[in-house]
Amino acid sequence: MTDITIIGTGNMGSAIAKRAAAAGRSLQILDRTPENAARLAGELGSGVISGGLAEPALGDIVVLALYYGPAQEVVTRLRGSLTGKTVVDISNPIDVETFDSLVVGPGTSAAEELAKLAPEASFVKAFNTTFAGPLSEGSVDGQPLDVFIAADSEEARKQVADFASAAGLRPLEVGGLRHARELEGFQLLVMALQANPAYENFNWGTALKILG
Amino acid sequence: MTDITIIGTGNMGSAIAKRAAAAGRSLQILDRTPENAARLAGELGSGVISGGLAEPALGDIVVLALYYGPAQEVVTRLRGSLTGKTVVDISNPIDVETFDSLVVGPGTSAAEELAKLAPEASFVKAFNTTFAGPLSEGSVDGQPLDVFIAADSEEARKQVADFASAAGLRPLEVGGLRHARELEGFQLLVMALQANPAYENFNWGTALKILG
Repeated sequence: MTDITIIGTGNMGSAIAKRAAAAGRSLQILDRTPENAARLAGELGSGVISGGLAEPALGDIVVLALYYGPAQEVVTRLRGSLTGKTVVDISNPIDVETFDSLVVGPGTSAAEELAKLAPEASFVKAFNTTFAGPLSEGSVDGQPLDVFIAADSEEARKQVADFASAAGLRPLEVGGLRHARELEGFQLLVMALQANPAYENFNWGTALKILG
Repeated sequence: MTDITIIGTGNMGSAIAKRAAAAGRSLQILDRTPENAARLAGELGSGVISGGLAEPALGDIVVLALYYGPAQEVVTRLRGSLTGKTVVDISNPIDVETFDSLVVGPGTSAAEELAKLAPEASFVKAFNTTFAGPLSEGSVDGQPLDVFIAADSEEARKQVADFASAAGLRPLEVGGLRHARELEGFQLLVMALQANPAYENFNWGTALKILG
């Protein structure tokens, strides 16, 4: 039995895998380059299985640790094996030419668009406001990172919230999947601040948190 | 000469007035009930002038410390006296029936709609993510509050950023006025969390902050 499948072995995939391993969850790592998946699995310790995108996703939770474009491709490709699973979209559909707008329209979100590609899966938006560095640590300034979670399925939302809690993070459930719009929209601003030389202390290592 | 006019004497008007007084700015307080304006002016100390909505707004910066509906009425009414001024919209156009959506459409924002009512003024979105309690203190957990600022006029944006800095807060300039959409959208989620009994530690006294 596998708890969580992580697809993608970049900074975010590695950070989420590290949190999942810390939480004691059993893991499968998949990547379009199977050697990358095997390398990350090896770093995480024994018992972590790995493979390429021809492998079926085995986890109850499948995390798409991918940019929006590749996530669209992967969901289309793996659609059959995602039926009944909780699929986590972490992407930020930023227009990287301008860093000033999203590539999805104002009345939708990357998460909702991905959900349309695999209607038999339960999509969850989460981890799009956590940068890889702090996520890898699990905390910032000694406080647990906030993980904002949006999903239509209460069960799927709870599954991801339980994972976040077990991983030492603080889950904040913000409602239905359409609230991915606000999560993606605000992260556009946070990312633009990282890229803005006027804020030299921000260097892709900040954390968005509700204090108090 | 008056630096800042604050229209409205509720929790937010009082908190912003307190920060402005702490920053040494000269103030005018206006309210539809002039007695309320006089009361707040009296609390702030000598030299603070006050009046009703028939008075002209004298400040270089005019803060609409109002809900979205009343802000629309006031901008319409004071339109002539706002010409050339920097007008700050702090509102969150939440659907208070559901706490789950905004009353403005997805391709606009309260700030942009208000700006249309007084095209000769420079509108700025700010202070919509700061609750009155922490704002009144100026800090949370010993750290300065973040004030997210969006405006088309760079000069107006800088004016409000300078005020925030002088008031002991941390200004974060996020770009053009259309980014009020993301600021209002995210605050919808933050407000819904305050209203959600599952998060009993959140009680309209939290602060949204970029840490690290």
